[in-house]
Amino acid sequence: MGTASRVAIVSTGDELVLGTTLDTNAGAIARTLAALGYEPASFLVLGDDEEALADAVTRLSADHAAIVITGGLGPTLDDVTRHAVARAAGVVLVQDARVLAELRALFASRGRTFLPANERQALFPAGSTVLDNPGGTAPGFALALGGALVVALPGPPREMLPMLEGELVPRLLRNAPRAHAVAARALHLFGLAESALAEELGAAMHRGANPLVGVTAKDGVLSVTVRATAATAAEAEALAGGHADALARRFPAQLFSRDEPDLARVLGAELRARRVSIALAESCTGGLLAARLTSVPGISAVFGRGWVTYANAAKVEELGVPAELLERHGAVSGAVACAMAAGAARRANARLALAITGVAGPDGGTPEKPVGLVWFGVAIDGVVHAEERRFVARERELIRALAVNTALDLGRRALSGLSGDAAR
Amino acid sequence: MGTASRVAIVSTGDELVLGTTLDTNAGAIARTLAALGYEPASFLVLGDDEEALADAVTRLSADHAAIVITGGLGPTLDDVTRHAVARAAGVVLVQDARVLAELRALFASRGRTFLPANERQALFPAGSTVLDNPGGTAPGFALALGGALVVALPGPPREMLPMLEGELVPRLLRNAPRAHAVAARALHLFGLAESALAEELGAAMHRGANPLVGVTAKDGVLSVTVRATAATAAEAEALAGGHADALARRFPAQLFSRDEPDLARVLGAELRARRVSIALAESCTGGLLAARLTSVPGISAVFGRGWVTYANAAKVEELGVPAELLERHGAVSGAVACAMAAGAARRANARLALAITGVAGPDGGTPEKPVGLVWFGVAIDGVVHAEERRFVARERELIRALAVNTALDLGRRALSGLSGDAAR
Repeated sequence: MGTASRVAIVSTGDELVLGTTLDTNAGAIARTLAALGYEPASFLVLGDDEEALADAVTRLSADHAAIVITGGLGPTLDDVTRHAVARAAGVVLVQDARVLAELRALFASRGRTFLPANERQALFPAGSTVLDNPGGTAPGFALALGGALVVALPGPPREMLPMLEGELVPRLLRNAPRAHAVAARALHLFGLAESALAEELGAAMHRGANPLVGVTAKDGVLSVTVRATAATAAEAEALAGGHADALARRFPAQLFSRDEPDLARVLGAELRARRVSIALAESCTGGLLAARLTSVPGISAVFGRGWVTYANAAKVEELGVPAELLERHGAVSGAVACAMAAGAARRANARLALAITGVAGPDGGTPEKPVGLVWFGVAIDGVVHAEERRFVARERELIRALAVNTALDLGRRALSGLSGDAAR
Repeated sequence: MGTASRVAIVSTGDELVLGTTLDTNAGAIARTLAALGYEPASFLVLGDDEEALADAVTRLSADHAAIVITGGLGPTLDDVTRHAVARAAGVVLVQDARVLAELRALFASRGRTFLPANERQALFPAGSTVLDNPGGTAPGFALALGGALVVALPGPPREMLPMLEGELVPRLLRNAPRAHAVAARALHLFGLAESALAEELGAAMHRGANPLVGVTAKDGVLSVTVRATAATAAEAEALAGGHADALARRFPAQLFSRDEPDLARVLGAELRARRVSIALAESCTGGLLAARLTSVPGISAVFGRGWVTYANAAKVEELGVPAELLERHGAVSGAVACAMAAGAARRANARLALAITGVAGPDGGTPEKPVGLVWFGVAIDGVVHAEERRFVARERELIRALAVNTALDLGRRALSGLSGDAAR
């Protein structure tokens, strides 16, 4: 998109670069600026190091429309942002009389002593505009540096976020990139290999493509973002929408939502909308499926109970799985998965039941039943079936997470197979 | 400390720079490398942009001892790390026959089609060392570039973290900064406010202190790291060890481990060592406690079953909670927590049972039983008691996570109260 729209976001603080505090400011700023048509090109995290910050500002000002800095505006000697920006701009620091008076008045009204160190907070690089901070004592500032607008905001999110909306956004809107409008569409899919999706998407994933398609994968869920740019908003919307719709038609069975990446929330909403009750029976996932489903607020309307039947005796005694099935087929089998689901549905008097039994590892695998083999049982309105998956992952927690998402997806598919009558 | 100890950490991915996903890898890497005596000098977050990444690697290699890159090692065209590093190093990409064969074999063993895109994961910059990825299909690599070691690791934290410990740390230890010796001690505590711990630690948390103490808090667990530097390893060990021991004596009841921050693993190890069986009964946590305990490999030796009794009817029918108790005290009460624990222990024939019933919100709170109120039941060898907690947090998932850790800690404390005889 070119220099005219590129933004760099710099977060400063020893606690950030030492990994003791996680920076959330950069992401919040990036989401806001991307929505204005700017391109967040990079985040940089630096310690409280005046020289390093000054060097970075100088370098970034050459090919960015804006540089947003958070942190380093406090009163102490390790707060170096104002000095670093002044050094990068080749200007002196000047004391702002209004800010100094306001700071003194604020301290007096709170009965706090105004220390010499606090005077630092009234210093600004010459030529900059002071940005008021309604939530704290550290004002920010904005300064033009070459073709770039440098904006410094305080580090605490509760101070920074109001200034982002109140000070930064209006300033950027004034010279927002007008060359193009941006539109985005999301699609969330399950049951598709990332590489297969990539083959289908092909060149649309190359940087510079329009629409540009990005894919992120988490526990088997593929979240696709389609971004289009055009001269007008209507054209951008049409371009992104058309591409997203074509992808949706290509993978109708795998597409589970256009706005919600969490399969538990999708299944939960579907259960509540259709007033279908659900029960859960888990072996290798050990309660993770129930934990995911109960992360959905209000799920108690359709979910009343679940079992973690880790031991074979528990499968027999709690769910009524015939001991003979366990002996003949083993706990990890389609027969046992079916019996678990049927038993859970019967015992809970639920219309839908999902069961999981598998080998999550690291131990317990055999050549016939390797680590990663998981059987799923689905009982709906008295009809039971089993499905097998062999996950390539080798790590226990990833296998469990994949199994939980698979069960949630099987539940979603079972519901979508209900006729309109049955769903009422 | 100079170039010899400076490390830059680069995280790649459009989802990071657009602010849709929060990067936690850089912080984890920084904490680990700081403990080795390296100086994390900066984090950089870039989109999936080969040219920008290549430029950054070239620039950073001039004055850093190591550049650690995460992400961009997948099979798709927006995975550009291997190409970018090759470009920065001025070398070609070469296919690694062993990795390719292993990938093909892995896909074949799981019955999955090996697509041309997957071959990308066997490409590495010429001259680099392949770093095996036990948790996924994307291997990493290490390459010397000028005076800097460039290390590329996969983006998913569950793949990255084991490689950080297994591959990166040993490589960096070999040429770790020798100017001073560093020693570190860890302490993991539960049931203590972070502010109370900070008061106790005082100036030891200030930058420059020696030993320097850092605290990270997660779901109620406070993980304390004591780092000391000295002229010799023995002096550093003595300094860190003495400080850590003093802290341990100050909080004996809250200290649950010196090496394991996961309360589930600590309880699991204790249960196995003492051969004590456990059963679980959950209401508001909905399976999360069982999921946490079954994340511990080998837990099946002591854990056979658990119940998610979300509805009152389930508490009555599955655990034998008297309906009259539910009517008189309500589901969130000490009486019901005790009855749930006693019922779970009896039904599972387990020596220890833990039960949780509370108000996780966002709805369901009342003035007498507000969101955040949770009752815990503990049954051990036929003796049952209940404990109440009122979590200040308002967010549903945080309340659930705090409740699970509290239950795990109550289980740990119940075991530690067993006499030597009873434990056998």
